[in-house]
Amino acid sequence: MSATPQPLTPTAVREARSLICEHIHQTPVLTSRTLSHLATPAGGPRITLHLKCENLQKMGAFKIRGATHALARLSDAELRRGVVTHSSGNHAQALALAASTLAKRKGFEIPAHVVMPSVSTPSKIAATRGYGAEVTFSGSTAREREEVVRLVQERTGAVLVPPYDHPDIIVGQGTVALELMEQVKPELLDAVVTPCGGGGLLAGVATACTGTGVRVYGAEPREGADDCARGLKEGRRIEAVKTGTVADGLRTPVGVANWGVISDPEKVKRVYTVSEEEIKDAMRLVVERCKILIEPSSAVPVAVVLSSQEWREEVMRVFAGREEIHVGIVISGGNTTIDKVVEVFGKKAE
Amino acid sequence: MSATPQPLTPTAVREARSLICEHIHQTPVLTSRTLSHLATPAGGPRITLHLKCENLQKMGAFKIRGATHALARLSDAELRRGVVTHSSGNHAQALALAASTLAKRKGFEIPAHVVMPSVSTPSKIAATRGYGAEVTFSGSTAREREEVVRLVQERTGAVLVPPYDHPDIIVGQGTVALELMEQVKPELLDAVVTPCGGGGLLAGVATACTGTGVRVYGAEPREGADDCARGLKEGRRIEAVKTGTVADGLRTPVGVANWGVISDPEKVKRVYTVSEEEIKDAMRLVVERCKILIEPSSAVPVAVVLSSQEWREEVMRVFAGREEIHVGIVISGGNTTIDKVVEVFGKKAE
Repeated sequence: MSATPQPLTPTAVREARSLICEHIHQTPVLTSRTLSHLATPAGGPRITLHLKCENLQKMGAFKIRGATHALARLSDAELRRGVVTHSSGNHAQALALAASTLAKRKGFEIPAHVVMPSVSTPSKIAATRGYGAEVTFSGSTAREREEVVRLVQERTGAVLVPPYDHPDIIVGQGTVALELMEQVKPELLDAVVTPCGGGGLLAGVATACTGTGVRVYGAEPREGADDCARGLKEGRRIEAVKTGTVADGLRTPVGVANWGVISDPEKVKRVYTVSEEEIKDAMRLVVERCKILIEPSSAVPVAVVLSSQEWREEVMRVFAGREEIHVGIVISGGNTTIDKVVEVFGKKAE
Repeated sequence: MSATPQPLTPTAVREARSLICEHIHQTPVLTSRTLSHLATPAGGPRITLHLKCENLQKMGAFKIRGATHALARLSDAELRRGVVTHSSGNHAQALALAASTLAKRKGFEIPAHVVMPSVSTPSKIAATRGYGAEVTFSGSTAREREEVVRLVQERTGAVLVPPYDHPDIIVGQGTVALELMEQVKPELLDAVVTPCGGGGLLAGVATACTGTGVRVYGAEPREGADDCARGLKEGRRIEAVKTGTVADGLRTPVGVANWGVISDPEKVKRVYTVSEEEIKDAMRLVVERCKILIEPSSAVPVAVVLSSQEWREEVMRVFAGREEIHVGIVISGGNTTIDKVVEVFGKKAE
């Protein structure tokens, strides 16, 4: 990546925004009376939820922010050699789209190489190619993928753009919080809850909110992918997850640079976990009430504000005496399918 | 309904808009590069589709427009006696919400009675009550429902607000087209395609577009609910449909007042029909690409522009020589559920 990574400061997030704003959408912020009502604790402050809809972002997820920022900080010489990443998800498509968008602006080609496990579903391979990436296959383990990335780099000189564990990615993702704070009206937002997988989004939002008074919280699936919440309790970064959570975008341990931000209690107040049923119930509510399609991963922070007892206690404690509070939720993406919805919701409860 | 119904003119639609605009949302208009590309015929004009998102309207459907307008034209004395309708769908909820909204403004109660077949699904009954309606049950035939409506009227003096077959409803629904024309930029819209069930929306849009040069088309499910298309061919209104189309909002014959507009070739150019598979494919595309939840009925006009050969021929003929055209589609509503999606898409193709 860029020779001098950005420092993890609000200023760097603002600089990132000016670099990427013309290439991405300023996504809308939705409110829902029903959801806000359900999130309001009995005897506590009235909660208004503000959903920052990155499912309506280009390529359907916030990941385009970090990828666009990482590329914007590379030199023309680096861009001509191309970029490479390993991902079977949103980051792969984000990198491919960011490269083709920037290539049009620059007037020269920017090759985007994506290393995917050969067992990836054909639709994901097709989608990644559809955004203009050259797909190279690898085995399924981290070591096998990294080896193939190394070979691509040797052959092409491409720059590695990791999915989350890099300051340029983190401050790029953080731009979503700058928009959210503006859109909810300055000085009004009290807290924001984001999903936490690799931690790019959570660390970015926390960096953007530093010094603003907005309290930042993370949200994780409890079953298997609660590496961040457990790590915070144990005081060390947990390096592996093994999970089949429905929130497939969050099946990732927190990265090193990300952990540096997230483990700072001044920056991230707490990471809450929710069950698979709570995630599914939250997804159903958002889809049916707000009439938008969201990924299961995006339902995780919604599930926190709707059903985490610990979150409710935090609200009652921190905002005691307040009549109303405003809570932002980053709806991280909408890249799911009807078939996936059928798969997740089609099975009868046992 | 009101003693002097509105005439079916663009002026009446504009008047309706000024009566209802403060009570409803101006819904957004979405474009999608993928959908527009798929709609563009080879060798024909490039098509840009503009989706008018009434799924994001209050109570999730355009029906709130007609109901709000009908009530706005009643006297205070009539409103105090209340309103009644028979519907198990969006119109019931629209009437209930319109009544409670207007009641707050007026400062007195406006009872809303909804007659529903006793076999209605409990969730629909609960939703209708949730909007504040008093639900009265009837048998399932039209005669049985009408008898119960009559009894409610005798008992309460409530005014009957029919779901679609009334000029005040028609011009109320037509307000959606005024917004759409403005939002796509004046003078830019070439055509608009809307679903056709009872014909309130189609007749309203056609009334609003009279004299503007915007060509208005209707869209129906081919299997069973093509009463309007068949009626136009036979030169007479068909008075009954019997159908299990997935587009459950369109399982209704066209009303009398509606037929008067729709059968005028100066106002509605043509009504196209599409198959169940085409409707499902269109719904899948809109949900997955635009990340919004739509009812199957709303997928019907999308299916027309994506897969009707007769529509393509019309485009090639009418817009021959044009480089680009702009086509509006009314996404009529989003009142469906995850369970319905599972039911519709969960069965494997035979």
